[in-house]
Amino acid sequence: MNSKLAIVLLSGGIDSTTTMAIAKSNGFQICALTFDYGQRHKVEIDAARNIAKYFGSREHLIIEIPLRKIGGSALTSDIAVPKGTIIEKIGSNIPITYVPARNTIFLSFALAWAEVTNAEDIYIGVNALDYSGYPDCRPEYVHAFENMSNLAIQKAIEGKMKIRIRTPLITMSKAQIIKTGLGMNIDYGLTHSCYDPSDIGEACGACESCLLRKRGFQEAGVPDPTRYIGS
Amino acid sequence: MNSKLAIVLLSGGIDSTTTMAIAKSNGFQICALTFDYGQRHKVEIDAARNIAKYFGSREHLIIEIPLRKIGGSALTSDIAVPKGTIIEKIGSNIPITYVPARNTIFLSFALAWAEVTNAEDIYIGVNALDYSGYPDCRPEYVHAFENMSNLAIQKAIEGKMKIRIRTPLITMSKAQIIKTGLGMNIDYGLTHSCYDPSDIGEACGACESCLLRKRGFQEAGVPDPTRYIGS
Repeated sequence: MNSKLAIVLLSGGIDSTTTMAIAKSNGFQICALTFDYGQRHKVEIDAARNIAKYFGSREHLIIEIPLRKIGGSALTSDIAVPKGTIIEKIGSNIPITYVPARNTIFLSFALAWAEVTNAEDIYIGVNALDYSGYPDCRPEYVHAFENMSNLAIQKAIEGKMKIRIRTPLITMSKAQIIKTGLGMNIDYGLTHSCYDPSDIGEACGACESCLLRKRGFQEAGVPDPTRYIGS
Repeated sequence: MNSKLAIVLLSGGIDSTTTMAIAKSNGFQICALTFDYGQRHKVEIDAARNIAKYFGSREHLIIEIPLRKIGGSALTSDIAVPKGTIIEKIGSNIPITYVPARNTIFLSFALAWAEVTNAEDIYIGVNALDYSGYPDCRPEYVHAFENMSNLAIQKAIEGKMKIRIRTPLITMSKAQIIKTGLGMNIDYGLTHSCYDPSDIGEACGACESCLLRKRGFQEAGVPDPTRYIGS
């Protein structure tokens, strides 16, 4: 193992957890970065804490950002989280759970922390396949952010650092992601996906995120360790 | 006046205040955006509030972001603010008051708010001349951010919006900025520049920001309305 650091954006879901395992398997020491952005699903943050510990992260920074003040999303406003969407329709339109410029805001903080810690690699678990509706999950976007990053920070201008935005999941299906993670012995029981969990952290089983998660485990042909409400 | 909205990043200093006046003179209704990022100079935020009112901003959003957690700057850490720098040397090196990725973080929030409010124009008072040390004040950086923005948000992808990052001061000297502002009847007594003010908001007169401000008024040949400590 080398002693290089990587910043890993960690939400506590399947994708970011698998991304963290990949970063670790690539030999990086992990600086985990989680955002508390007034989302409905605070249980995600507890999941992120447990996952950061599980992977022996060198540091775990939890940053509060008031995205709720800006609004525009079912995840941060009083708009109801949609339930029971027909799964084939997910991704054909941009869902109302889209948070404007979310990945741009998250990656900007990651960039700041990367410069301070001298971590050249920033891992983000975006996925262009399952979430084709989100513009900030596409390779064109990721490349443009990386290009901007290397013009934005002092150490890049001085030639001391070159930022790389790493997206190991970008072309994988949810089933492929789960299989990849199980191959690295991830305990997905630690992860959380639901947009609208119960007070004790059970998943609703009906929001888009739950539907994609369920289908992922089915297609991967492995048991789903999630605690769903009423199951 | 048209009814188009522009987001204006407003710190409460000379540059952002002049930028706001320019946005207004260009016919925009103003959505002012200020960040409370744990800076030493909280008096800036009070200045921003007064300035947003003075210009009749349609909205003024003040967003708290914990940049202090990330560190790496004399403006957000316990590093001392340097005093008495020889003014000719300012800009020849990146100063320790540099905040990693600050403009990227600020512009990312502006981008989110722009999408929610349908404001295509984002004004930021960056200046490549006086602060040549800051990488995120240069035209190359601004263009890269703009390019990324139009790949990041739903409404740009759908062709409903095209984000423009407007930097009207980018090639002006501080004296030119002040003259431009006075030509639009700005009361610079409302603005605040000092990195290390007294408890009652007087400017120290010795930090880099005070030195550049003083020289700006001298070179513009107009009285400096700033209250300095002991003056």
